[in-house]
Amino acid sequence: MTHHFSTMTQHLGSSAVRDILKLTQGKDILSLAGGLPADAFFPVDAVREAYERALQGGGTALQYGLTEGFLPLRERISEQMAADVCRVHPDEILMTTGSQQSIDLISRIFLDPEDVILVEAPTYLAALQVFQSYRAIPISVETDEHGMLPDDLEAKLIRHRPKFIYVIPTFSNPGGNVWSLERREAVVELCRKHGVLIFEDDPYGKLKFNADLNFPSLYSMDQQYGEGGNVIYTSTFSKTVAPGVRTGWVMAEASIIRTAAKAKQAADLHSSIIDQRALHELLGFFDLQDHIRTVSTEYHTRMVKMTSLIKARQWEGVSWIEPQGGMFLWVQLPKHVKADLLLQHAVREGVAFVPGQVFYTDGSGFNRMRLNFTHTDPHLLPEAIERMERAFSSYAAEVVSI
Amino acid sequence: MTHHFSTMTQHLGSSAVRDILKLTQGKDILSLAGGLPADAFFPVDAVREAYERALQGGGTALQYGLTEGFLPLRERISEQMAADVCRVHPDEILMTTGSQQSIDLISRIFLDPEDVILVEAPTYLAALQVFQSYRAIPISVETDEHGMLPDDLEAKLIRHRPKFIYVIPTFSNPGGNVWSLERREAVVELCRKHGVLIFEDDPYGKLKFNADLNFPSLYSMDQQYGEGGNVIYTSTFSKTVAPGVRTGWVMAEASIIRTAAKAKQAADLHSSIIDQRALHELLGFFDLQDHIRTVSTEYHTRMVKMTSLIKARQWEGVSWIEPQGGMFLWVQLPKHVKADLLLQHAVREGVAFVPGQVFYTDGSGFNRMRLNFTHTDPHLLPEAIERMERAFSSYAAEVVSI
Repeated sequence: MTHHFSTMTQHLGSSAVRDILKLTQGKDILSLAGGLPADAFFPVDAVREAYERALQGGGTALQYGLTEGFLPLRERISEQMAADVCRVHPDEILMTTGSQQSIDLISRIFLDPEDVILVEAPTYLAALQVFQSYRAIPISVETDEHGMLPDDLEAKLIRHRPKFIYVIPTFSNPGGNVWSLERREAVVELCRKHGVLIFEDDPYGKLKFNADLNFPSLYSMDQQYGEGGNVIYTSTFSKTVAPGVRTGWVMAEASIIRTAAKAKQAADLHSSIIDQRALHELLGFFDLQDHIRTVSTEYHTRMVKMTSLIKARQWEGVSWIEPQGGMFLWVQLPKHVKADLLLQHAVREGVAFVPGQVFYTDGSGFNRMRLNFTHTDPHLLPEAIERMERAFSSYAAEVVSI
Repeated sequence: MTHHFSTMTQHLGSSAVRDILKLTQGKDILSLAGGLPADAFFPVDAVREAYERALQGGGTALQYGLTEGFLPLRERISEQMAADVCRVHPDEILMTTGSQQSIDLISRIFLDPEDVILVEAPTYLAALQVFQSYRAIPISVETDEHGMLPDDLEAKLIRHRPKFIYVIPTFSNPGGNVWSLERREAVVELCRKHGVLIFEDDPYGKLKFNADLNFPSLYSMDQQYGEGGNVIYTSTFSKTVAPGVRTGWVMAEASIIRTAAKAKQAADLHSSIIDQRALHELLGFFDLQDHIRTVSTEYHTRMVKMTSLIKARQWEGVSWIEPQGGMFLWVQLPKHVKADLLLQHAVREGVAFVPGQVFYTDGSGFNRMRLNFTHTDPHLLPEAIERMERAFSSYAAEVVSI
């Protein structure tokens, strides 16, 4: 039976990552493609204890809850954000089913067809897909490793009057880079000047390889201007606790949160309250900051191991900027290499990555690839890089033979 | 700061139930308004045990999962649906954050502005709100206590070419009624004849007051015609286990499920995997069917208690059809009574209900009210009905004095 799906469905597109994951299913593939944290470091015992405590309260813990989310957890997030110099009232926080839902809800309440969103180049592909599903038009602002270029941003703010700009300033996906303080200041100021909202996505900001470094959020910098209110911020417990707790949040001025809550009520009434109660319990007895330091140190070690292995291969024309945190190594390939073709060889050799093109709005990035260094067991990394080497050889042989 | 929200946001409307709940917050209100199951009957110990078991598997239980949901749970649902004479492959099931999300996702993949949906009169108000947020037009089919009237349905199928018809055939919300077998057959056949999908919402079907009665789903009846495929079915564990586990599912032919999964991936990647794993564990060791019988018996007792209390008051012009299951008593008020005005008096007296009008697309139902009999402690029911009596008196006094 053929179905008449909505226009939105036709704009959902296919997910490149989804297609890649399908390619790798049921095979002996070492995947550097996913954006998965390391299972081995999930605080399973603490999480089990947290659910145990959350369910000691009797039936109430299992009843319907507020669309906005479990209030004590929002209060706790408000306190923790204060430590990051962000003033946020619990009424300015909406709990979501991971920050992917924050992106969807903010898109839902703001985007009409033909609306423009300014984004980094490259940027998170699943955000691009959401914007496009609402038939908004994501337009790239010229970006270097320090962030968006202010001149190009201002020109495009004026020319396109975007609904918002969407940015990942700290350990971005896929770039892995950190915006400089100057760029942060410039972007916050320019967006205020032109009355355009900033949508700051910060899933990785806590995963710092040097605990002494501080990267203030655009949300906090915006509050240097009186009341703030020009930044919508989303983050998640997926990378600091575990993805399985499926809990993120979005914070913004109260009128935006109220509107997003109305959209969320229609979308799913509320996210799992048990998960939110368990997280609230966890934050009460578990030293999450210490845990994050442990995990970040391990990720740093894994990143160094991966880059050392690649350096030792001396692949010509392959380079990257070493990330200071996060989960991704963003690799520049030689000019002539097409990453999507290379991927086919890689999968045949038993290793996977995400080709760069999917992170751009304009088809560039074909000779880039994103490698995840957090998920694969470090003992398997030499084998993964060995397979990459074979993929390069096989690719080169095919290209020559054409 | 004023924001330029999307057109969709402007069509989200305000939720009447949400407004009512606000009205009742922080006050000593006995609420018969919500659609909440009884906390006291939630299987808290079993649920706690289930989470304990789900988290014994180590880190994998906390990792990202498939958008479609935890496969062993989908397999289990497939088996359970087989007991209800529904053939459904796990690939034809998508796990959702409660059946509200099923309604949103199905709307998202099918509805464009101006599309028509045919609905019962009355019907679930939060479904109406979702359809309207996608700017679709819900049109009521003439409905009596046995279901939609076939003649009117066929006329409207022809006239409006709807994207789908949305129905709650078993213990509907708010009507509480059950469609007759004849009506089920007629509706399934007519929709097949005209090539229009049926979207069957079945959150309450298991809450039967007479365990011997069977009400076949439209999904199963559609499968009497060869392969089926013309019915999309959604249900949830919210009413059989507890709302807090926040897990529902939608099932339909594979092409619809694949498309809905793409939409869900953009919306939130996936629902809580821990909750799904815990539910899967629960279904392994907990006798859910026995639990449902216990809960349904209790709900039957509460319904009888509520109706006896009301009968004893001998309110003139107040009537209802006694429900055979579900959670709601759908009360006909005297012709002249406006339920939304009565509600103001009721809240002043300390009792709340949902006025009927919100369940209709055409402004009718003003002299109806929906009473929930499952949530309020039965010991408090006499007081609740006493307060209703005072509300009627106060309302009558005001109407006379105008």
